[in-house]
Amino acid sequence: MLRCIIVGYGFLGKRLARLLASGAIGDIKLVGVASSKGYIYKEYGLMPGDLPDDLRFLSILKPSPASELIDKRITDLLVELTPTNIRDGEPGLTHIRLALEQGIDVVTANKGPIALAYEELMGLAEKSGAMLLHEATVGGGIPLISLKNRCLAADELLSIKGILNGTTNYILSRMHFEEMTLELALREAQMLGIAERDPTLDLEGVDTALKLVILANSLMNAGKRLSDVKIMGITRITSEAIAAAKGSGMTIKLIGIADEEGLRVAPKLVRLNDPICVHGTLNAVSFNFRILGRLTIIGEGAGESTVSALLNDIYEVVKARSRSNRI
Amino acid sequence: MLRCIIVGYGFLGKRLARLLASGAIGDIKLVGVASSKGYIYKEYGLMPGDLPDDLRFLSILKPSPASELIDKRITDLLVELTPTNIRDGEPGLTHIRLALEQGIDVVTANKGPIALAYEELMGLAEKSGAMLLHEATVGGGIPLISLKNRCLAADELLSIKGILNGTTNYILSRMHFEEMTLELALREAQMLGIAERDPTLDLEGVDTALKLVILANSLMNAGKRLSDVKIMGITRITSEAIAAAKGSGMTIKLIGIADEEGLRVAPKLVRLNDPICVHGTLNAVSFNFRILGRLTIIGEGAGESTVSALLNDIYEVVKARSRSNRI
Repeated sequence: MLRCIIVGYGFLGKRLARLLASGAIGDIKLVGVASSKGYIYKEYGLMPGDLPDDLRFLSILKPSPASELIDKRITDLLVELTPTNIRDGEPGLTHIRLALEQGIDVVTANKGPIALAYEELMGLAEKSGAMLLHEATVGGGIPLISLKNRCLAADELLSIKGILNGTTNYILSRMHFEEMTLELALREAQMLGIAERDPTLDLEGVDTALKLVILANSLMNAGKRLSDVKIMGITRITSEAIAAAKGSGMTIKLIGIADEEGLRVAPKLVRLNDPICVHGTLNAVSFNFRILGRLTIIGEGAGESTVSALLNDIYEVVKARSRSNRI
Repeated sequence: MLRCIIVGYGFLGKRLARLLASGAIGDIKLVGVASSKGYIYKEYGLMPGDLPDDLRFLSILKPSPASELIDKRITDLLVELTPTNIRDGEPGLTHIRLALEQGIDVVTANKGPIALAYEELMGLAEKSGAMLLHEATVGGGIPLISLKNRCLAADELLSIKGILNGTTNYILSRMHFEEMTLELALREAQMLGIAERDPTLDLEGVDTALKLVILANSLMNAGKRLSDVKIMGITRITSEAIAAAKGSGMTIKLIGIADEEGLRVAPKLVRLNDPICVHGTLNAVSFNFRILGRLTIIGEGAGESTVSALLNDIYEVVKARSRSNRI
């Protein structure tokens, strides 16, 4: 059995903790869960009944930092799910460093540390022989990183082009189909919980840029940072501009591109019958491979679907560790 | 080094042979190639110069059947690329059986044996410890089988729905966009080499049904045969029917479906902005997973792209064999 801990107890943390505690993946024993209030730990494994929405009222809650849990004497696998922080990646970055240094495998959905410190973290992982899997950082449950690395390893990836942010895609889709203004579509998205109260990172293209950096670094060895991306958001897109595009069989989408010219995010005209032209909160990514040509993959880029990516990465760790007889 | 032979020397065989002979995949040595006229073999490896379009004029050609080459004393990996035969799967079925019985790994693009005898062949493979990989049988280079098995193994696949035949999709797209009749679109497709001289298997939906059987058996353990599929082709689709669909934001596509109600192929109304609604010779498949939800993948389902699927499967064999120290 691999002893697993989850650090971060928001939407994803709760869903995943309950799935693991009820045995969703064989050979995984969930021994600890940490929120910002402290952590709970049971050597013989947590049960679904140990996992209420709010950990604060549990008698076993220890009001200590998560770092205390990240200790190879009690943990084989860390699932890091604290909120993304694009300034310094904390506290996720410290958690992941701490784990990898001890040879603890890491699965994460936290974009901050992966976008800001990919090379450093991969270096730590290599040194200690730990695995660092982060499919859930980009495109929710859509397999993007494993698609290239596990299914298309013999072909060469030449470029990436995609809609990587569901919030802006929802807004642009409403502007296209309902002829709404950006302000109105944004307010609707906020009411539905699709946009955050402060939607700046989404609207300004920064969230898309972070994901693009992660994809380019993990799949093309690009060695890029957020500051290398030319970014333009959608705040200046008018309903008139979208209506004009519509008149000629097109629309406007916020597109991230990584190719030989570098990384950039900007609103682009897209043909309505282009495979990448998806609507609502969907994400879509087109890869261009040397032999295969163009491959497009589409799915929900957030929410429940992200739980699938976490489970698949955890399963991959279990498979690799049982292969090397570490279970 | 894994010693590899290719049986079948048509479009795919030639492309793949030249790539392998020029070292496209490390640890693979191409030692033999067989066409219907006989085979060539070089213990120390074939070079690109040994591989003209027509093997008949080579002095080293031995006019013997391919089965002579399929011998574990000289071969570790068989790539089976003879033409699909939906009646009895031959000669591919015999070639694949012969290899698996001896523990020789098999990579194939041949739909016949996989659709007709999947359980038997997987049984043989399990018994001898050989690998049988067949990503290239469905959807060209689009990873469909490996996508589920390597990237989404921890989720549960509930249903499959897709456009799996590029020829009929080309015809229906021309009928939709150019308001052509089926006859005219078919003639155009034949002139362009997209449709065969005898297009029956494509138009009647049999090719789609074969691929659906392969997907359902490999990904859902369905244990189905071609005779289990309810099949309706596109021969009765009129330009009027497509024009009527177009009027309400839809079109008609030939769709294969595998779900709890079984396997079926039929022309269906599809919304123009549904991710599965792709045009030209593109293929598109939507998977419905328990946790992930809907995932759609789109690409060219034939030609050059299939070479990528073959290379990726061969690479997977090399990886697995070097892991188990058999290289």
